[in-house]
Amino acid sequence: MNNFVFCNPTRIIFGKNTHHEIGKEVEKYSKNILLHYGGNRIKKSKLYDEVVLSLKKSGIAYTEFSGVKPNPKLSLVREGIKLCRKKSIDFILAIGGGSVIDSAKAISMGVNYDGDVWDFFMGKVILQSALKVATILTLPAAGSESSPNSVITNEISCMKLGYGHDLLRPVFSILNPELCFSLPKEQIANGVCDMMAHIFERYFTNTKNTELSDKLCESILKTIINNALKVINNCENYNAWAELILAGNLAHNGFLGMGRTEDWASHSIEHAISAIYDIAHGAGLAIIFPAWMKYVYKHNTPLFTQFAVNVWNVNDAIRNEEDTARIGIEKTEIFFKNLGLPTRLSEINVNKSSIDTMAKKSIIFGELGNLKKLCYTDIVEIYKLAF
Amino acid sequence: MNNFVFCNPTRIIFGKNTHHEIGKEVEKYSKNILLHYGGNRIKKSKLYDEVVLSLKKSGIAYTEFSGVKPNPKLSLVREGIKLCRKKSIDFILAIGGGSVIDSAKAISMGVNYDGDVWDFFMGKVILQSALKVATILTLPAAGSESSPNSVITNEISCMKLGYGHDLLRPVFSILNPELCFSLPKEQIANGVCDMMAHIFERYFTNTKNTELSDKLCESILKTIINNALKVINNCENYNAWAELILAGNLAHNGFLGMGRTEDWASHSIEHAISAIYDIAHGAGLAIIFPAWMKYVYKHNTPLFTQFAVNVWNVNDAIRNEEDTARIGIEKTEIFFKNLGLPTRLSEINVNKSSIDTMAKKSIIFGELGNLKKLCYTDIVEIYKLAF
Repeated sequence: MNNFVFCNPTRIIFGKNTHHEIGKEVEKYSKNILLHYGGNRIKKSKLYDEVVLSLKKSGIAYTEFSGVKPNPKLSLVREGIKLCRKKSIDFILAIGGGSVIDSAKAISMGVNYDGDVWDFFMGKVILQSALKVATILTLPAAGSESSPNSVITNEISCMKLGYGHDLLRPVFSILNPELCFSLPKEQIANGVCDMMAHIFERYFTNTKNTELSDKLCESILKTIINNALKVINNCENYNAWAELILAGNLAHNGFLGMGRTEDWASHSIEHAISAIYDIAHGAGLAIIFPAWMKYVYKHNTPLFTQFAVNVWNVNDAIRNEEDTARIGIEKTEIFFKNLGLPTRLSEINVNKSSIDTMAKKSIIFGELGNLKKLCYTDIVEIYKLAF
Repeated sequence: MNNFVFCNPTRIIFGKNTHHEIGKEVEKYSKNILLHYGGNRIKKSKLYDEVVLSLKKSGIAYTEFSGVKPNPKLSLVREGIKLCRKKSIDFILAIGGGSVIDSAKAISMGVNYDGDVWDFFMGKVILQSALKVATILTLPAAGSESSPNSVITNEISCMKLGYGHDLLRPVFSILNPELCFSLPKEQIANGVCDMMAHIFERYFTNTKNTELSDKLCESILKTIINNALKVINNCENYNAWAELILAGNLAHNGFLGMGRTEDWASHSIEHAISAIYDIAHGAGLAIIFPAWMKYVYKHNTPLFTQFAVNVWNVNDAIRNEEDTARIGIEKTEIFFKNLGLPTRLSEINVNKSSIDTMAKKSIIFGELGNLKKLCYTDIVEIYKLAF
């Protein structure tokens, strides 16, 4: 186990009807907020009206700023920054999934910074202060509701980059499973893949002596696997949603990485796709992760075997280690397929001629990953395996 | 799953040599601190010298206040409060296990309160402010290094009572497995039982739909079981200690209780023993928990069966549910015995004539527990089963 520091102060407010108390929660921090969201989904349900009613009851002034789309865009972030400055806003309430929350975080980074907010994502400066952000989660996936990360797409340069800082952890997040009842199946599937990917990035490591965090990763993966199809088949299954939302939160609140060297190659490899083709991040991960696994598993076959046995219940008594490992990878891919996700780049109309551009884009800051260090030629091979 | 709110902002600084940075960590909060510890163990090792050196390097004034013993005493807490006031101290650094940390927390509660600090424990007042506390953990057991609780013994009234408030979560805790190398086997065993008990209090519940938190509880219990004898047999086994310390922290940082109705009857039943007989809390729990399990398991046999199968690997295919459940309880008791712990009140010279006094003491604030609500006669039966 490596040395580590861990701190996650985000307050998780979980359960039925919890969003009705949003006004009381917000007023502990601010009376003048930005209300940031995507589009019509929250207005079609009662959520928008209920939130606004609660804010009004607590005498909180709110400025609406909507229009966030998947792969949240830098241009919108810049607009949001201007709006916050103009209205002297000091707190952002994000209502939505990871895209809205990441957009809110990026806005919060830029308001007190004199330069361009993209500087942070390009690694030019380190964050010194940020507005406080809170969230009402409507799509469990990104884990952004308590993570310190934001991922933004620069539409001009077709770059999708992440930035992480503890100042970006939301002060509180409301997780009400009922708010997920209206989600389309496709978004649920993308979200499931995203949360599993957050665990994979931590689980697949060469760090030794990680018994407890191995077990925690496996427990959360199994819970996701056990509940994903339940909510896809019945999107009003409260109990299955509750498990899934809690799992998605723990998958990326940071605690699964305690003492482990994390990987994160697959995320960068995926970001290079969705920066160009604007596909859903979860769908991209469903394609890239099985390909990455096939390419790297021989660098830690015992761990991939453990994964097959403990997560996918593969009986290892009748096979050799390598076969067991391979079956675990196959089962992962089949699971994604069963969720309705693409598992090949060809399915999402990515052109083979883009491989060179994507591979170069993904290694803009150098080699990727840790389980196996990946350079340009490795990444090209992974994209090929994904076709 | 129940609705819940969870927030644990304690910063965990984990690993080799981490205590050498204590000065830099403390100076973020204070330049005038109380250095609170037990006795000679930290002076015999290099720990005391290393901490003092680091504090001096950062220019931090410290007032030493030692003498904490297991089942930390109210009289010492009152002395500490006076000392903090006299020296205008605003921060307490606790070096030790749960007793020292609980004593530090109780002191932190009393300094800004005009009345007697025991008022909080008696439920007469709610905490409004507390000094900040940080810890260097030398005995993993109580989980007090990131819990919001303190348990103090009033020697005059022979009452051992706990108080909990989020203000009591330490701002940071340093967890360095090497600091546990000098622990006597008996203290290790007590600590192991204490951490398992913290999980039992959350795991054994009638709350339904708790798949993920069930799995997390089971993972942490298994990790403790797998590593406890390793450190008892080789107290310098860093890797086993690392697993155990992390497990002990997660066992009681609150996250295992997310969405579950917790029990806590056994803790109160034990407190009534150690308040009178001054035995180690962990030893008391090794006696009470198996007795409690035997008394209550029929109120949720499926859960006790799941415990036997998932934690103790009992093969349930060849037995009926009730037999499986009973074997799980037996295995728990045998495990405690193998650690060298007592599992009967007679072994620690408790007098049968004390049962009435202890039972009355344990229900001073009313019925105990949730899996089964326990009144006076139930508790008497549990004490009898423990003989």
